[in-house]
Amino acid sequence: MEIKLVKKVLAAHDALAGEIRAELSQKRIYCVNIMSSPGAGKTTLLERTLAGLAGELRAGVIEGDITTTNDADRIARYGTPVAQINTEPFGGDCHVGANFVKTALGELPLDSLDLLIIENVGNLVCPAEFDLGEDDKVVVFSITEGEDKPLKYPLMFRKSSACVVNKLDLAPHLDVDTQTIRANVENVNPKIRIFQLSAKTGEGLDPWLDWLRERVKAKRG
Amino acid sequence: MEIKLVKKVLAAHDALAGEIRAELSQKRIYCVNIMSSPGAGKTTLLERTLAGLAGELRAGVIEGDITTTNDADRIARYGTPVAQINTEPFGGDCHVGANFVKTALGELPLDSLDLLIIENVGNLVCPAEFDLGEDDKVVVFSITEGEDKPLKYPLMFRKSSACVVNKLDLAPHLDVDTQTIRANVENVNPKIRIFQLSAKTGEGLDPWLDWLRERVKAKRG
Repeated sequence: MEIKLVKKVLAAHDALAGEIRAELSQKRIYCVNIMSSPGAGKTTLLERTLAGLAGELRAGVIEGDITTTNDADRIARYGTPVAQINTEPFGGDCHVGANFVKTALGELPLDSLDLLIIENVGNLVCPAEFDLGEDDKVVVFSITEGEDKPLKYPLMFRKSSACVVNKLDLAPHLDVDTQTIRANVENVNPKIRIFQLSAKTGEGLDPWLDWLRERVKAKRG
Repeated sequence: MEIKLVKKVLAAHDALAGEIRAELSQKRIYCVNIMSSPGAGKTTLLERTLAGLAGELRAGVIEGDITTTNDADRIARYGTPVAQINTEPFGGDCHVGANFVKTALGELPLDSLDLLIIENVGNLVCPAEFDLGEDDKVVVFSITEGEDKPLKYPLMFRKSSACVVNKLDLAPHLDVDTQTIRANVENVNPKIRIFQLSAKTGEGLDPWLDWLRERVKAKRG
């Protein structure tokens, strides 16, 4: 009985993700779901990305957090339409679910967007398990977390189209080898695109922006 | 029906945690459950802790990981009895459950232990929700994750008796204020004990070791 029930709940979730995917496709909005551990630099990467694409692509953001509106407040400063999801009133969910995205879509000006970015709850495990109707999942990985994390949390890296290896500016102060990180990421997902950058300094940002531009263009058709 | 079922599963889990607590109490073993984001430095803290207490307290370790035995291999070098839990064969659970702990206890020489340390799966959300029969939960928080994380992930900090603020050696290279971190931790849990240290260099380790010594002594009675 238990397994049947879990399957039913997941089937309903995936059906909702399918509805979101259809709606975004119909409007030709490219959607990326950004995931990472807490504090890996998702919001800083978003700020850099929005600044880098300003005047070129029209972006909207869905901010997923258990509680607080800290991240949405940071994003709103860029004049970007942003919908905040707080999962705390719903049991403090450890990930953004399709139900939250569906609600958030109603708060965004979809007819004037090219790009929708979902910033997930900081968690290197659970968010990887849920389809949100996005075109791509992207994992942001901070080099401060250590070389072995792709091997220890493989699902997130397997499900992602791209991996942003972040906080490169701290490399001189850490005992980590960025080549080993790259090898470990590719070990669990040989097809993943890897971008090494520092969202803080902006170093290495351009290839990441180019990748997003290409994805948005492909979606527009 | 769904809510009833979830309650039933949780009740079974808590009953098992109660059994673990009774067994450890009977053997007067103090048990601490160490939790954090991935890469916050739990294993390095464990290595320092085991070295610092060697010849004084007899420690055993339960290593919880989704996959790999990397951490258990590191701990075994200290001659410490260690039981590895991998959650991947069971759906890749994002936290250590009481069922895993119960199994792991059978692999440890309980009659010759004073202290049992559970290193949880790296996740700042889900592990906080589960009672493992431990005496204390401890959250390790790396300053690289940014000042606001206690406010964004409050449950983990509320449930913990102590917070180890780690990677102090990186403070000169980050835009974070350790006083703000301390204030944010105390904001969500005014009673929590805070230890600021660097597990890498060993700076600030002694108050943490003293706290553990006191807890073990209190459990022995």
